[in-house]
Amino acid sequence: MTEIIKPVAIGNLCVIGTGLIGGSFCLALKQAGVVEHITGAGRSEETLQKAQQLNIIDSYDMDIANAVKDADVVFVSVPLGAMQAVFEKIAAGLKSSGNQKAVITDAGSSKLQVQQLADKVFADSAFRFVAGHPIAGTEESGPDAAFADLYQDRRVILTPTDNTSTDAVKVVTALWQATGALVETMDAERHDKVLAATSHLPHMLAFGLVHCLENMDDIENIFRFAAGGFRDVTRIASSDPTMWRDICLNNRKPILEMMQRYRDELDMLYNALEAGDGEKLIEVFQHAKQTRDKFTH
Amino acid sequence: MTEIIKPVAIGNLCVIGTGLIGGSFCLALKQAGVVEHITGAGRSEETLQKAQQLNIIDSYDMDIANAVKDADVVFVSVPLGAMQAVFEKIAAGLKSSGNQKAVITDAGSSKLQVQQLADKVFADSAFRFVAGHPIAGTEESGPDAAFADLYQDRRVILTPTDNTSTDAVKVVTALWQATGALVETMDAERHDKVLAATSHLPHMLAFGLVHCLENMDDIENIFRFAAGGFRDVTRIASSDPTMWRDICLNNRKPILEMMQRYRDELDMLYNALEAGDGEKLIEVFQHAKQTRDKFTH
Repeated sequence: MTEIIKPVAIGNLCVIGTGLIGGSFCLALKQAGVVEHITGAGRSEETLQKAQQLNIIDSYDMDIANAVKDADVVFVSVPLGAMQAVFEKIAAGLKSSGNQKAVITDAGSSKLQVQQLADKVFADSAFRFVAGHPIAGTEESGPDAAFADLYQDRRVILTPTDNTSTDAVKVVTALWQATGALVETMDAERHDKVLAATSHLPHMLAFGLVHCLENMDDIENIFRFAAGGFRDVTRIASSDPTMWRDICLNNRKPILEMMQRYRDELDMLYNALEAGDGEKLIEVFQHAKQTRDKFTH
Repeated sequence: MTEIIKPVAIGNLCVIGTGLIGGSFCLALKQAGVVEHITGAGRSEETLQKAQQLNIIDSYDMDIANAVKDADVVFVSVPLGAMQAVFEKIAAGLKSSGNQKAVITDAGSSKLQVQQLADKVFADSAFRFVAGHPIAGTEESGPDAAFADLYQDRRVILTPTDNTSTDAVKVVTALWQATGALVETMDAERHDKVLAATSHLPHMLAFGLVHCLENMDDIENIFRFAAGGFRDVTRIASSDPTMWRDICLNNRKPILEMMQRYRDELDMLYNALEAGDGEKLIEVFQHAKQTRDKFTH
């Protein structure tokens, strides 16, 4: 856990992508009273208008390069697949306006590729980029879904490199702490492995389970007999397909490694069941139950 | 859906196993006022005493053969692994007391093997056995966990054979309907396939996921970053290991078939991700989301 840093009020925050993640970040910072002015930017004017109506942002600018010109901090909360284009517009805006103070951070679910992208696009200014990932969210999306308490007591992982400015990390840490989040730092590679295990693999398994069943004969009738357990296991299969395609493609190697590990596990269970090996089955089930009960305690 | 049958009050109900499933059955029938006297039986006197204190049963008898001698209906709610021994004691008790009226039913999660067992153990009286499975439960167990509304609007599947007495099916249907349940009939083989898909496979996947992760380095730290999605996917990995070993061994073939089908699905997803095939990934995710959203609507 990083030390608690006294939040320093900042003047201008520019938030690119004012949906659930970006919108909740704004609302939390406004509630904490640590930001003077928030400028929204993004692809959809309808979304930005909605965000302004909801007092998530104070003003907006459809032109990202223009929106960032006076920013002290730029917060990028767009899907991973849109990150490169957005970074390029930010870099162009900072350059043309001569803004050499802005700290840039993001909220993407995988970090190594985002960092590589930032190093390439921001080049000499990449030391002011701090990669971040809030472990929070709901299945909802858009400004309507945003709320000030989303990050309360949730973990946020920052993955600074050896070249990242310590001051930039402090600013981003202070902002996240002002939202109520618990900030930790780790290297991007470790982040991507941890998230592949606890989030990306479970999503693949849930999507795969529903997809595997939907091709069975008589599936309409089969689903009528599904109980609470099935609903819980498959809840995350209702997540946004585009976002998850982007996460998969951005964190491919660690996810493939976890999938391989999981296939080995399934093979072991299959073989134990095929052999009627009740002792092996109960050993696995007991271990799993103990671990899960301990973890959720 | 079976027609609604007017519940006929019965005199003596004998319930073997007075935990969550058996206890809730008793409480619901008492609430509906359709049973005169309930005798509990089972392995643990402490459980039976507790059940009597909670007014789940009116009396109890540790000797199953004795407990069933005046029964109009015998309800067996013990783990699948204990079913054979219990059936043998019931058969002995009915024979020695000359009880030729008792309808026997069970609540086990797999049906084909239970039916085969009943055919063997009850022999000439097997026509009075009606295999059943309530799709209901919680992670809790024991008489303390029982409650009268557990079966309200839940589905109960009965799997009578061509030899099962129509009257016996009517009695069991009427009792379940009195608990508030929606009763359906299907053949045992279909039941076992449907449950392998919607319940048994998801349990295997959840147990496997936790077990697969627990052997990773640094797992204590990894679990700290698990969010709500992980909690939901793995909730059923906290289920009772003995009960699930029994279910696996009792419904081995349909579960193996579903596991094979799921392994093929995972292989497809693995190959798509390895090839960086974003179109294939989004197609699978979209289908899964649509199916899941439609099903939970």
